[in-house]
Amino acid sequence: MIEIRPVPGIGEIENGEDLGRILGDALASMAPESGDFLVVTQKVVSKAEGQMVALEDVIPGPRATEIAGAIGKDPRLVELVLAEAVEVLRAERGVIITRHRLGLVMANSGIDCSNVGPGSGERALLLPRDPDASAGRIADAIEARCGVRPGVVISDSFGRPWRNGVVNVAVGCSGVPSLHDKRGETDRDGRTLQATLIAYGDLIASAAGLAMGEADEGVPAVLISGLVLPGTVQPASALVRAVEEDLFR
Amino acid sequence: MIEIRPVPGIGEIENGEDLGRILGDALASMAPESGDFLVVTQKVVSKAEGQMVALEDVIPGPRATEIAGAIGKDPRLVELVLAEAVEVLRAERGVIITRHRLGLVMANSGIDCSNVGPGSGERALLLPRDPDASAGRIADAIEARCGVRPGVVISDSFGRPWRNGVVNVAVGCSGVPSLHDKRGETDRDGRTLQATLIAYGDLIASAAGLAMGEADEGVPAVLISGLVLPGTVQPASALVRAVEEDLFR
Repeated sequence: MIEIRPVPGIGEIENGEDLGRILGDALASMAPESGDFLVVTQKVVSKAEGQMVALEDVIPGPRATEIAGAIGKDPRLVELVLAEAVEVLRAERGVIITRHRLGLVMANSGIDCSNVGPGSGERALLLPRDPDASAGRIADAIEARCGVRPGVVISDSFGRPWRNGVVNVAVGCSGVPSLHDKRGETDRDGRTLQATLIAYGDLIASAAGLAMGEADEGVPAVLISGLVLPGTVQPASALVRAVEEDLFR
Repeated sequence: MIEIRPVPGIGEIENGEDLGRILGDALASMAPESGDFLVVTQKVVSKAEGQMVALEDVIPGPRATEIAGAIGKDPRLVELVLAEAVEVLRAERGVIITRHRLGLVMANSGIDCSNVGPGSGERALLLPRDPDASAGRIADAIEARCGVRPGVVISDSFGRPWRNGVVNVAVGCSGVPSLHDKRGETDRDGRTLQATLIAYGDLIASAAGLAMGEADEGVPAVLISGLVLPGTVQPASALVRAVEEDLFR
């Protein structure tokens, strides 16, 4: 049986707070075991890492101003979106879809303006600089505090091109078989399996999403127990499809 | 706490078997409660509904033959893919991405050639004709057998354009807030939420995917307990983005 439990007692996370210590303290009361997975929202990781930007400090360039005018967004926000992106895939109907510098294709380069604190209509929250490394540091802190090292997934909510609604995906992982390669395995009748890669990192993030409540920062951390996965440890970056394999640009 | 448990004792499902009765019998030993969700793979639903096609009975037309030659697939399989599709989005690099008649954008119109039974290299399994209706019939059968009516999700594994690996999504739902609309709600600081639609149907399918094991028919049904979701009941068809809102075609 797989169990999914919210991690209690994590309040608002402020800029520069020691999230690993806070998570370790909160988890200590839950008796985590070896093999457990901790899922943490990108939002609290970014806040702890100081990824909040005041829009008043942003000076939009000509391209940001042009795009912002065309799609009706704040040009300072668009400037940040462009600064975080290596490529703009779409900018229409009020939406900017970019390829983030981490390779992630997502709306607004993953920049968030909701639930970023009081008065933060004028603030924007960027993704962590290196979410796989962030996940590793969180695992370090929990291991130091609790004596067990959980798998850690940093999750974010992504839209999908052909499906309505957002789902949670993994943007950072430590100690997780994020992408399991079944190539070479056969089905029970001896045929080679068609779907050869399983995105376990994203499945874990989505399962945790069920326990995170309506406001996606309502429960910023979730512990998953009893989950035994095949495969070898991979970073979340393994979940990013290479540009040359992308059929939809 | 959310609990995810495999439903035991479901063997190979054969053409025309009464899947609702089989699931009801299997669930009876698990003491399902009101508010539980049952996730069932598309594959066993399709088999029970007789959606298996022998390739030797398929005569490929000129378009199927042309596409099959270009991408190196069996022309009879491509004929089936085209027959199930309303549109071909991509046919290259060995992959056909179509819009299925149900609106689902997916590889091979959702047609499966693995784990479809002995000797079935020559057989193909189509999606259920109306998966939302299938989910409702399964809920009916379980209610009749167990006295409680679970939410039912029929899941399939989908690739994603910009991410490696497949994840489980909902292709049929009954009694599930598949798509929760938060529009008009505000975040804790009073700003309107950015991500306004949550694809709970897909999150449930993905959570169950964690318990389904490596071969995706190894565990064809999973029970999820302790999950309380907001929102109103919606069919899985609500998860399909309208063509006119599609930015990636």
